[in-house]
Amino acid sequence: MPREITAFSNPLIKRIRSLREKRHRREEGLFLAEGLRILTEAREAGRIPQYLFFARDSAAHPLVLALVAAVEAAGGEAIETVPDILSKLSGKDNPQAVVGVFAEFTRTLDSLDRYSASIWLVAERLRDPGNLGTILRTGDAVGAGALILIGECVDPFSVEAVRASMGALFTVPVVQCEWAEFLPWLRSGPGQLVGLSLDTETGYRTASYTAPTFLLTGNEAQGMPDGYAAQCDVLVKIPMLGKADSLNAAVATAVMAYEVLGRE
Amino acid sequence: MPREITAFSNPLIKRIRSLREKRHRREEGLFLAEGLRILTEAREAGRIPQYLFFARDSAAHPLVLALVAAVEAAGGEAIETVPDILSKLSGKDNPQAVVGVFAEFTRTLDSLDRYSASIWLVAERLRDPGNLGTILRTGDAVGAGALILIGECVDPFSVEAVRASMGALFTVPVVQCEWAEFLPWLRSGPGQLVGLSLDTETGYRTASYTAPTFLLTGNEAQGMPDGYAAQCDVLVKIPMLGKADSLNAAVATAVMAYEVLGRE
Repeated sequence: MPREITAFSNPLIKRIRSLREKRHRREEGLFLAEGLRILTEAREAGRIPQYLFFARDSAAHPLVLALVAAVEAAGGEAIETVPDILSKLSGKDNPQAVVGVFAEFTRTLDSLDRYSASIWLVAERLRDPGNLGTILRTGDAVGAGALILIGECVDPFSVEAVRASMGALFTVPVVQCEWAEFLPWLRSGPGQLVGLSLDTETGYRTASYTAPTFLLTGNEAQGMPDGYAAQCDVLVKIPMLGKADSLNAAVATAVMAYEVLGRE
Repeated sequence: MPREITAFSNPLIKRIRSLREKRHRREEGLFLAEGLRILTEAREAGRIPQYLFFARDSAAHPLVLALVAAVEAAGGEAIETVPDILSKLSGKDNPQAVVGVFAEFTRTLDSLDRYSASIWLVAERLRDPGNLGTILRTGDAVGAGALILIGECVDPFSVEAVRASMGALFTVPVVQCEWAEFLPWLRSGPGQLVGLSLDTETGYRTASYTAPTFLLTGNEAQGMPDGYAAQCDVLVKIPMLGKADSLNAAVATAVMAYEVLGRE
């Protein structure tokens, strides 16, 4: 039976709320995800929260019942609560009906099977959590093998990234590594490294792509270091007809990924 | 000569800061934009702020000097200030060197020349300011004639939308109107209305596009109403290989827009 918490001062509420900060996520190895749709996506992907908070007035919803059952079967705890506490946990005025607390999970390069997918997304020093989540969402849509994060990237378990991923954090493997690990791993087998660049005459619609294709997007403000670009098998550019010199990083990744997908 | 403001209690600072709220923007007809890059983009597009706030330690920067000169020539006011006040105005811990206060500007359908561009972006009940700004940024990149906002959309002059547009708010015309105005205007001349939909078998890469093409994207959560879809000349879908059933709205718009651009 779910227990009930309605007091802001409850120590568990304080602890869970602290997971909105990266430092606390690292200490606990836990992160927050919210919303019936995203938590159901997680459940279907086999990810069950350790704690599930749900609003009293949504307790009878079939998807909430399914989540509560899954959490209790997995030895987690389902907790009935009030909208104000859900607001406090999620940081939103209009809270979702459910908030889940999950164990963090990442993958290593060595655990990836490069033959399992033809498109792989690689982002370098990605700084915006919304971009990271949106790239994961695109990765799910194009059937990407993983999102490989190179260097100092924003935390994929931040509330904003999880929210923007719309559940794709649970379906697309995420690897965090350094360039010095990624490049030898990539070159230990087949794989075309395609870099998105402004310094090339090769249009993304005319380049040739060979699976498995690894699409490399650089930092939002600076692009990728020259040394990384030099290691790419091909550099491609997306045409820019206007005043601006670049696209949003998640948009550029998606335009590239759908071009590669469309060639198959 | 720029005057100097260093006191938080200054009434102008309070007034400008209130522009972070939509209600005050509507009352004043003014909005905030920040950052040297975006304000320079605005200046080059002929948009000069009524007030320009700049950090004392950036006063010698050539782009700041150019902005100050432009503002004073246009009868506006350039105000030297301190980082804490720039933080307060922009709502960011690490403020940009400049914050500008601009008069709002929108266009009407009748002012658009549909022969001036082959791609036009149309968004319906768009709710997320980041999506709106990102769509504007993409619109700039593909040379879109305008972004036409249908129905209850998020405010294009919100701080988040302006920021995400990276200056494209100043280069891409924005129209706000109702569907009942848009449709007769569209049908009063040539124009293919292409709707992004999940309920079609027509892939976006196989459909035919005829300029001027109007790309219609629906609400982030619900897509477009059936009645709107019925008025489209063609409905197209973007393939979704994963668990999720939709892309981010700005991503979907960009994938479509670049496909249409690539056909030209």
